[in-house]
Amino acid sequence: MKKYQVVGIGNAIVDILSHIEDDFLAANGVEKGIMQLIDTARAGELYAAMGPAREISGGSAANTIAGLAMLKVPTAYVSKIKDDQLGNIFAHDIRAIGADFDTPRAPADHGDETGRSMILVSPDGERSMNTYLGVSEFLSPDDIDESIMADTEWLYLEGYRFDGPDSHAAFAKAINACKGAGGKVAITLSDPFCVERHRDAFLDMIRKDIDLLFCNEHELKSLYQTDDLGIAMSLASADTQTVACTVGERGAYISSGGQEYHAPAVATRVEDATGAGDLFASGFFYGLVNGRDYLTCGRMGCIAAAEVISHIGARPEADLGKLFADEGLL
Amino acid sequence: MKKYQVVGIGNAIVDILSHIEDDFLAANGVEKGIMQLIDTARAGELYAAMGPAREISGGSAANTIAGLAMLKVPTAYVSKIKDDQLGNIFAHDIRAIGADFDTPRAPADHGDETGRSMILVSPDGERSMNTYLGVSEFLSPDDIDESIMADTEWLYLEGYRFDGPDSHAAFAKAINACKGAGGKVAITLSDPFCVERHRDAFLDMIRKDIDLLFCNEHELKSLYQTDDLGIAMSLASADTQTVACTVGERGAYISSGGQEYHAPAVATRVEDATGAGDLFASGFFYGLVNGRDYLTCGRMGCIAAAEVISHIGARPEADLGKLFADEGLL
Repeated sequence: MKKYQVVGIGNAIVDILSHIEDDFLAANGVEKGIMQLIDTARAGELYAAMGPAREISGGSAANTIAGLAMLKVPTAYVSKIKDDQLGNIFAHDIRAIGADFDTPRAPADHGDETGRSMILVSPDGERSMNTYLGVSEFLSPDDIDESIMADTEWLYLEGYRFDGPDSHAAFAKAINACKGAGGKVAITLSDPFCVERHRDAFLDMIRKDIDLLFCNEHELKSLYQTDDLGIAMSLASADTQTVACTVGERGAYISSGGQEYHAPAVATRVEDATGAGDLFASGFFYGLVNGRDYLTCGRMGCIAAAEVISHIGARPEADLGKLFADEGLL
Repeated sequence: MKKYQVVGIGNAIVDILSHIEDDFLAANGVEKGIMQLIDTARAGELYAAMGPAREISGGSAANTIAGLAMLKVPTAYVSKIKDDQLGNIFAHDIRAIGADFDTPRAPADHGDETGRSMILVSPDGERSMNTYLGVSEFLSPDDIDESIMADTEWLYLEGYRFDGPDSHAAFAKAINACKGAGGKVAITLSDPFCVERHRDAFLDMIRKDIDLLFCNEHELKSLYQTDDLGIAMSLASADTQTVACTVGERGAYISSGGQEYHAPAVATRVEDATGAGDLFASGFFYGLVNGRDYLTCGRMGCIAAAEVISHIGARPEADLGKLFADEGLL
């Protein structure tokens, strides 16, 4: 029996959420619906232009881990924050929800700060993310505690973390420690433009080390450079054991060992799409570590995703276990 | 024509909001429904004990000014923040909503940080506030720009700001500059325990300098040390020109120049009571600076208060002007 069921590695980010009208995006050079990396100067410029905001801890894999921790799944999270106020907020929120988080902090005199993302939420609920990675970019192999990686059933890697000088080596160290102890490895592709930046590295890792691939249709098509989702699913299924691909309002397709499943989306009013994919992964993992079939895993993922997009902020507010039970899954 | 219609002075606070069950309050020594001042050690202890939170700019007078700025009333705000991340958040949010805010910051090497309040929201929507004042406690006469005070129709003082070594002198400087230029002065009593701490100073100021007193029934009864709200209203009316006293679900009583008015509360589901009194003051001021009668001022106050308690966070999310229009007041 391992100590953890899921350990996540990703970018520790505090979300700075604000509602905007769509013309704000065009006027400020923001592309709708994707994640753009920005530097300090651009962060200052955009922050000055945007309206009042609220701060809620985020980070893609961190949101997934938070969802699992709320469901009482034993989890840990690994990422770089700084010894600053936003770092305190991030660390508090993920620990308070029940996850272990003990990655050494960057010191107070580090030139960068704790990462943040200015998330502009459009009237239709779509979010456009502008991310200053800050110290989260500097996660290095030194930050990987192999004893944690050896003591988890699943290691969950955030594709966004491929942006950074030492992250590939950090991932390799984590994967080796996890697989060496009999654990399995999952990854999320994170964003279509992230896939563009790191296609070869993603494909190498998926073919060699990945047991479970999370993605959405845009990311998967980008990975295999095709406009045909069926072809992309087939190629992915040849490259890895299990593929869980979300398809927006159509729910999710899961492919595993030659079998295919379709989990329907759960109808909800989209208030803020931030975290939809992250919480899909929470629900899916919850099913998986509890020995449920893939269709049930996918349905749990869709239920958790629907919860998180029904309100502002990328971490659940409702009791996910109760929502699973309401749908007859628990 | 003055540059500002309302200038507020108060504690600059970032709210750290979290839902709790009521037994958390007892277990952690928090008294329900009031504001408790806490030191750094207690802040750390309570933060470690509480669940995940979200950060939203707050501060009592700052919330009032934010509500007015949303309504396009020319406003400025005066308070002490530090050159730190929470200070950046606070300054951004109040400026982005349209208020001027240029008080010199405490330097990065100041021993305290930007103020914050851990606000624990109970299932019934009542909030219990635990406030670390930080550098906001150090507002001094040097921070008062007399040219701003001379250029406003109304100066609005937050009672909470009586907690602090140099604040009384700062208030006196601001009052003199404002009244010397023909402006008027309002104050809010803030909290019944704040009244206990500063009763004589409040009474002195009200009798000498205050034209408009904002309070709730508990604060007013505490001020005049009586259990009879009618008696307290009479005593207050003898001490100052206008009294606007909120009475929870019964709305607000206004007394001015021998006339009395009752503005009914607006029915709403209480999600988070934080900011009710602050936004009552926004609505009331909005009527006042637009030359409306006191009953309308009170009704606008009740409408704005109902909006802010219908969601998490102490600053309005809906368009208050539209809400006033929906009630036939605009």
